[in-house]
Amino acid sequence: MKKNVLTRLFIAASVIGVLLFLMTCGKKEAGQVGNGDLKAIAEQRGLTPADLIAAAKTYVPTGKHDEYVMFSSGGHSGQVLVIGVPSMRLLKVLAVFTPEPWQGWGFSKETKDILKASYVDGKELTWGDTHHPALSETNGDYDGEFLFVNDKANARAAVIDLRDFETKQILKNPLSLSDHGGTFVTPNTEYVIEGGQYAMPWTGQYAPISKYKEQYRGMVTFWKFDRKKGRIIPEESFALELPPYWQDIADAGKKVSEGWIFMNSFNVELSTGGVEKGNPPFEAGASQLDMDYLHVIDLKKAEALFKAGKTKKINGFPVLTLDVAAKEGVLFFIPEPKSPHGADVTPDGNYIVVSGKLDPHATIYNFTKIKKAIDEKNFAGKDDYGVPIIAFDTAVETQIELGLGPLHTQFDPNGYAYTSLFLESAVARWTLGGPWTEKHGKEPWTLVDKISIHYNVGHIAVAEGDNVNPDGKYLVSLNKWAIDRFTGVGPLLPQNFQLIDISNPNGNMQLLYDMPIGIGEPHYAQIIKADKLKSWDVYPEIGWDPGTQSKSKYGIQAGEERIVRRGRTVEVWMTAVRSHYTPEHVEVRKGDRVIWHITNIERAKDATHGFALPYFNINLSLEPGETQSIEFVADKAGVYPFYCSEFCSALHLEMAGYFLVKP
Amino acid sequence: MKKNVLTRLFIAASVIGVLLFLMTCGKKEAGQVGNGDLKAIAEQRGLTPADLIAAAKTYVPTGKHDEYVMFSSGGHSGQVLVIGVPSMRLLKVLAVFTPEPWQGWGFSKETKDILKASYVDGKELTWGDTHHPALSETNGDYDGEFLFVNDKANARAAVIDLRDFETKQILKNPLSLSDHGGTFVTPNTEYVIEGGQYAMPWTGQYAPISKYKEQYRGMVTFWKFDRKKGRIIPEESFALELPPYWQDIADAGKKVSEGWIFMNSFNVELSTGGVEKGNPPFEAGASQLDMDYLHVIDLKKAEALFKAGKTKKINGFPVLTLDVAAKEGVLFFIPEPKSPHGADVTPDGNYIVVSGKLDPHATIYNFTKIKKAIDEKNFAGKDDYGVPIIAFDTAVETQIELGLGPLHTQFDPNGYAYTSLFLESAVARWTLGGPWTEKHGKEPWTLVDKISIHYNVGHIAVAEGDNVNPDGKYLVSLNKWAIDRFTGVGPLLPQNFQLIDISNPNGNMQLLYDMPIGIGEPHYAQIIKADKLKSWDVYPEIGWDPGTQSKSKYGIQAGEERIVRRGRTVEVWMTAVRSHYTPEHVEVRKGDRVIWHITNIERAKDATHGFALPYFNINLSLEPGETQSIEFVADKAGVYPFYCSEFCSALHLEMAGYFLVKP
Repeated sequence: MKKNVLTRLFIAASVIGVLLFLMTCGKKEAGQVGNGDLKAIAEQRGLTPADLIAAAKTYVPTGKHDEYVMFSSGGHSGQVLVIGVPSMRLLKVLAVFTPEPWQGWGFSKETKDILKASYVDGKELTWGDTHHPALSETNGDYDGEFLFVNDKANARAAVIDLRDFETKQILKNPLSLSDHGGTFVTPNTEYVIEGGQYAMPWTGQYAPISKYKEQYRGMVTFWKFDRKKGRIIPEESFALELPPYWQDIADAGKKVSEGWIFMNSFNVELSTGGVEKGNPPFEAGASQLDMDYLHVIDLKKAEALFKAGKTKKINGFPVLTLDVAAKEGVLFFIPEPKSPHGADVTPDGNYIVVSGKLDPHATIYNFTKIKKAIDEKNFAGKDDYGVPIIAFDTAVETQIELGLGPLHTQFDPNGYAYTSLFLESAVARWTLGGPWTEKHGKEPWTLVDKISIHYNVGHIAVAEGDNVNPDGKYLVSLNKWAIDRFTGVGPLLPQNFQLIDISNPNGNMQLLYDMPIGIGEPHYAQIIKADKLKSWDVYPEIGWDPGTQSKSKYGIQAGEERIVRRGRTVEVWMTAVRSHYTPEHVEVRKGDRVIWHITNIERAKDATHGFALPYFNINLSLEPGETQSIEFVADKAGVYPFYCSEFCSALHLEMAGYFLVKP
Repeated sequence: MKKNVLTRLFIAASVIGVLLFLMTCGKKEAGQVGNGDLKAIAEQRGLTPADLIAAAKTYVPTGKHDEYVMFSSGGHSGQVLVIGVPSMRLLKVLAVFTPEPWQGWGFSKETKDILKASYVDGKELTWGDTHHPALSETNGDYDGEFLFVNDKANARAAVIDLRDFETKQILKNPLSLSDHGGTFVTPNTEYVIEGGQYAMPWTGQYAPISKYKEQYRGMVTFWKFDRKKGRIIPEESFALELPPYWQDIADAGKKVSEGWIFMNSFNVELSTGGVEKGNPPFEAGASQLDMDYLHVIDLKKAEALFKAGKTKKINGFPVLTLDVAAKEGVLFFIPEPKSPHGADVTPDGNYIVVSGKLDPHATIYNFTKIKKAIDEKNFAGKDDYGVPIIAFDTAVETQIELGLGPLHTQFDPNGYAYTSLFLESAVARWTLGGPWTEKHGKEPWTLVDKISIHYNVGHIAVAEGDNVNPDGKYLVSLNKWAIDRFTGVGPLLPQNFQLIDISNPNGNMQLLYDMPIGIGEPHYAQIIKADKLKSWDVYPEIGWDPGTQSKSKYGIQAGEERIVRRGRTVEVWMTAVRSHYTPEHVEVRKGDRVIWHITNIERAKDATHGFALPYFNINLSLEPGETQSIEFVADKAGVYPFYCSEFCSALHLEMAGYFLVKP
């Protein structure tokens, strides 16, 4: 009986405990939302527990900021995309090669002039095909100061200043109309590398396709960057002539390999296509041989030769010719499995990972071995252009079978490498060897994990994953096809960026987020810690010209507005401030040349004004302090209302005026 | 002692219960992720329980699709943004008024021709200022077939086909260079409304500002839409001349008010600015009077007069002049509080909500009262242009004080209205009255909730919230300033779209998500249920011209490729398929005119090919089945590598060829 009582008491007490459990387990604290709510939402929306985890890992609440910023090429949109990570929100589309009216890019005289400087023989270019953005580096680490990007379609390189996120300079490659191996920077951003792609006679020269071997050429250009000026100095830049293999991606050496450049190639077959004549098309012709050539370039030696006057002027630009480069020991080749695409240097600079899309392996070259072979002149012969060849076995550390269609590789801080597998639609994680083995404590040079992506991954980007201090944590898979991932938006689909959690090297990689890219087709991206960026809130002074990052001679203060006529030229100095322009009336005669400067005299963050003028095809974006100019001929009589195209204030609709052209 | 034992036993049992609680409360089921993980992530990332709820309400896992699609204007980017809701992911930037190379928009002959048709006197326009997208409607409900949007900067209207999400037609307004009250559609999309903004003499005419009252005019244009053709028919369209008040937003009547148009105006003061001459600037001059005029237009009567030949040709376009409109009872004015911005008709068509940014009230007009006044000719006089005025008290149902700077209003299915408050940076929820009172069961015409936004909201969009069957559920606040919400990306900040949960009318509105808009400054948006959209996966047939939505006469099948010379013209018919073009070599002589047609003969979804040609400024996007053409003069000798700018396959880099121009 006593036992019974005790039992009953025990049960009763247990029941109280269970009640306590039931009462508190799902209970909300004051002001909180309980797990029960989450569960109900998950059920209603069909979310799995893994989805909830992914949501929690990527959601950035209002007022908080992303931890990382990704700079992605915008592909043939011609622009650069700025994306917050892990929220995968598109923060900005930076106008680079394509005119963009929201930013006033290519509409003001100042920005038109930057674009015009990159035209070929004055022929207008209104687009680009951006491939490889490169953040400026200090000691091999991103410093957050500048961004460079190439235009594959016309062989151009652009400089973007990350104080105001605006393009400052666009350079036309003087030799070629095609690039791909750019832009990449040397560890202290001394040079911006722009390597060619499709071989051709130098720009402006004609040679029949039958003279391909003799007269078509590849190239790599080393653009000298002046960090203080924030500009590439063409006069201190030079190029290296290369055989008409189609050069591909490049990477700069770092640490032990600093001063060296590694660049893939394909079509060492010198295939010239012509499927319409019964020839094998390029896709077959350029894939016949088992090996292409990894180009190894001694940049320090090349620079010394350039400074010693050993270059030849071609199209007015100094070029280290192939015979000089071969003879002087600037250029070396190493066989690499057929049609490779990625060439990526490990954070310590000692390994170069090359992946060939038609070969399931990553091939790892050892720089120490390469350097030894070069120093000892241990060559296996020369190619037809006289370039010394280092034997595959002499240079290679190892090969790892990763899967179908390996392309590009990035790194984390724990000694792991990540390689995209295009054909397999997956990302592979594998261990580095050598000194890295200690970090991960696993079998070196071994595949350890694989994750499916959707679909057809090209490049991947790991947080700071291609510099000397990778952060790891996040990997973004830059997928080429999206197929079924998003709501249908017509036959042209967005691309798909997938965010993958790589923070646990002992667990599996986890897919966190699908981000549609509905503007352009990104190729490469770099991910930088957000706190490294020191963006300006407003321009430093009223009357600022972002094109020169200095005061514009056309900038004015309030009270200095005026309209001055000189013969048939009318010059206008105007200010913009919430919520009116001064002057509000501008009258000219038909046929007058109009030069018009506008200064936004605001000092408050986000107080941008626009300036839209119909018929004359003008829209400016004037950030606080900025001065921009327009020039045109008033070729049609009439009345043209101009207005502020930014919703700047409650009375923004009233921020308008009339431009009158008298017959 | 017994008591002691019992107490101890009780405590022990309770402890077991608590242990049970501790052991099971956070426990994972097999394959699941536990709450403990979520809690750890939330702690690590600084997320509140409310943040977790918001994350769960907005996260869309890989492979699942958004429930709604938002079509937002892209402001002065000139484009339209397509956004998934609730994930707030940008699915696509639709090229409309601004050339966009990723889509090949404005680079092919076919798309250039669409843009050119909207130029003024042949003068090139390469941008637009999109303000108000309008989905086509059937019986007042979105049908998902077409989208229209205006260009405020040059007064143009565009038609987008939602089968392929491409722009099909752009029309230049023949009368004016400024519009704002467009585009809006009538309940069966018979007409697309384009109302003017800044009054001016008709395009091409000059009149000094001193003749403002006599010679400057406003307008509203009624573009007749032919749903079968998918085109506006200019020959069946007409305009209505309006006084030089600055007309603003319009809305079409629905149900009881079908056939009527409501349009705001400001600057009934006829202020002409001129701050530089000591006049009040427009911002002050246009805000002097307490009342502006709500324009009420009898579209059915206007249409009948147009069909009866009562219009006058101005710039070759039929215009119902102000005197005819006033005399025939087409146009009426009702005073509305100063400088109003929003004019929104309730789902039942009986109320028109007008909000003035300089007045803290929403003013609700009753259409039945308006109609009665018109029928009874109960007018309070005429304005200076002879237009009958209905007294404010005769037409108004009520006024509600909402807060500072009320602008735009949308609706949900439960009888609530939502109004943006620009100056207050908030969204107000309030109850409708009349028959709606039964739905919500609350006090009619009463403010019930308010939520802060960040910052300066212009328009808002509720899911299907401006048609006859609002869905409610989600509201997006289209904020103009972002200030501190996102990582710094330079002095030009993104805008901020905030997603707000309005699904519980008895609870508070909840902020769910901040979406940065880093491309353009959106104004208006509409949100449609995603399953109403019937997007094509690929074009229906090989050789399709999206410009006409029919087979192109230049489309070919594999095997029909050819190059034909006729004098100095060379015409090329080319195909593209993974992974080569046919032909791969095209050779012409310097000075030849080149006409080049390319057909993508793929049938697989997402198998898009690009076509990039350097120097000649060409990039095409060829979706499966599509044919596009280019035309240019080969004005510079040389060799031009062309290539596929879409990463279409593992061998996409080999999808290339050479265009040779012989000297």
